[in-house]
Amino acid sequence: MADRDAEDPLLAGSVDSSNQSNGNNALKRRKYRRSRSAPTEDVSPGQSSVESLHHTESIFGKTIHFKQILVLLGAYLGVGALCFFLVRHQMKGQKTNVILDAVYFCVVTMTTVGYGDLVPDSILSKLLACIFVFIGMALVGFLLSKAADYIVEKQEILLVKAIHMREKYSANDILKEVETNKVEYKVLTALVFLIILIVIGSLFLNRIEGLNLFDAFYCVCATITTLGYGDKSFSTFAGRIFASFWILISTICLAQFFYCLAEFYTERRRRSLVKWVLTRKLTISDLEAADLDNDEVVSAAEFVVFKLKEMGKIGEADIAMVMEEFKSLDVDQSGTLTKADLVNLDSSNS
Amino acid sequence: MADRDAEDPLLAGSVDSSNQSNGNNALKRRKYRRSRSAPTEDVSPGQSSVESLHHTESIFGKTIHFKQILVLLGAYLGVGALCFFLVRHQMKGQKTNVILDAVYFCVVTMTTVGYGDLVPDSILSKLLACIFVFIGMALVGFLLSKAADYIVEKQEILLVKAIHMREKYSANDILKEVETNKVEYKVLTALVFLIILIVIGSLFLNRIEGLNLFDAFYCVCATITTLGYGDKSFSTFAGRIFASFWILISTICLAQFFYCLAEFYTERRRRSLVKWVLTRKLTISDLEAADLDNDEVVSAAEFVVFKLKEMGKIGEADIAMVMEEFKSLDVDQSGTLTKADLVNLDSSNS
Repeated sequence: MADRDAEDPLLAGSVDSSNQSNGNNALKRRKYRRSRSAPTEDVSPGQSSVESLHHTESIFGKTIHFKQILVLLGAYLGVGALCFFLVRHQMKGQKTNVILDAVYFCVVTMTTVGYGDLVPDSILSKLLACIFVFIGMALVGFLLSKAADYIVEKQEILLVKAIHMREKYSANDILKEVETNKVEYKVLTALVFLIILIVIGSLFLNRIEGLNLFDAFYCVCATITTLGYGDKSFSTFAGRIFASFWILISTICLAQFFYCLAEFYTERRRRSLVKWVLTRKLTISDLEAADLDNDEVVSAAEFVVFKLKEMGKIGEADIAMVMEEFKSLDVDQSGTLTKADLVNLDSSNS
Repeated sequence: MADRDAEDPLLAGSVDSSNQSNGNNALKRRKYRRSRSAPTEDVSPGQSSVESLHHTESIFGKTIHFKQILVLLGAYLGVGALCFFLVRHQMKGQKTNVILDAVYFCVVTMTTVGYGDLVPDSILSKLLACIFVFIGMALVGFLLSKAADYIVEKQEILLVKAIHMREKYSANDILKEVETNKVEYKVLTALVFLIILIVIGSLFLNRIEGLNLFDAFYCVCATITTLGYGDKSFSTFAGRIFASFWILISTICLAQFFYCLAEFYTERRRRSLVKWVLTRKLTISDLEAADLDNDEVVSAAEFVVFKLKEMGKIGEADIAMVMEEFKSLDVDQSGTLTKADLVNLDSSNS
């Protein structure tokens, strides 16, 4: 058997589209596989960074999520603004327009900036603030961070294009470059966004709110970190309109930047582990350990399980779980699954 | 071949300790495997929740981390307090003891609570605040959250014990219960911690700072969410000593609670996906798809790769990576690795 045979089936998923014209029986059979695969999975916190490289197909699922997030954000701000508009006489501090102040207070509260330039001054308004800050935190933490991740990933390609503008890179080269150094470019993209937001915020506070440039920068830092001492804040009508958007975007952007940094650190460690696992010399004892069915040879699948286990990508628990299922399916206890097993299983069930 | 043969080697890592007395050749061989395994891996953000269930061995590594974190936190607070002590005449607001105020300001800044009861009032002190808030955020985000996770996990067992006090659970049963419902108990543990911290904070603000109970609760909510409007804060000497500890612990605890909630949500989705993958009826086309080396039978390893791929646990990229290594090692292109391959490899290298 040529080694190509051992490799292709494993990679069938990824070569499907390019190899369809090949059209031999084996490949045709494999085309079915995709439709029977698991339901489209989302990128979840528990998923490794490598996995998240492979959700090109789930972009549509993500777009729907993105719209849902916008609706939820709109609902939160709408209900929040209405509530704080209704209790507007139970708020104290610097006021401008009643509706604008309600929205501004909502944003300052949900992002936990909490300047204190506008504070609740009754039991009801304080209670509302307590409720809205918890909901706001959850909204920012669970939903908006996902949306930010989505945006950063989309902008990544533009950034890579810009960086390699002078070199003649094809669209394909750009995509490949993004895939290979995904995490690095994510950090860079978030950083670029962040710097732009800091500059815009500082200039706005300087021009419109009349702060000197250093104080404007200080207020920007105190805001994006959600510190919000409140000694400097947005006090004008135009300032609060700007702030309602800018605070929401910039606080999430900084959080996203820190998240990308953590991801970068994890990914670098993972890569060095993977490199170590793949480049270290294979010994005879390794072969014995990898030989799961004790047939003196290590098949491609056995090698994959052995190496992925060594990388910490799969654990004993995962294997044990699948093995339990394997045992229950292997009716004739041959140590392998065959069509006969399935037939036996059907007859024993009916 | 009995199915036990197919299973045991796969599970060797987990049964090692219990089966050592068994002492047949195959098991002895396997004992080596552990020492040759990958360097101890930490629980990183990119790792799945299932993986993180299996770091009993790395507890020692974690303890060292824990000490390093305490040292870093001490260094941050030490340097921070010194800096803000030196610029104490460039700060304005409610002051108590000069050293205490410096520490208190450090904590309020690093947790991004930022009451604004004490604010920097010169270019130098503002610059210091900007620097310390960024470092503090990173410290809280990267390090303290890991420490909190460690503490929550350790306390989990106590909680499970307390819950099952009336039933006669052995230590082993408790451990098993914790392993099975790890994420659920983590959420519960974090919640219990959080409620205790909220009650302590409210009572303290009520008794020592003289706020009425509702205002005390309002101030607690505004603090643990890092909102910190600053209309209510710690203004007495005793209050600021208490606050320096309580703010640090409670803000991290709330963040940890939200983190556990997200983990819980991910884990539940993962479990339902795993259940779906494992319980759905296996078809003949599945067998064909899983049969990687086209030998008409599906070996245990092939089944594991097929199912874990379906669960999204491993991706095409992971498999492709290992397969490249497999190809380079399979010198005689037999589609399997044998001792002969290793010998050939050695001779071609030398």
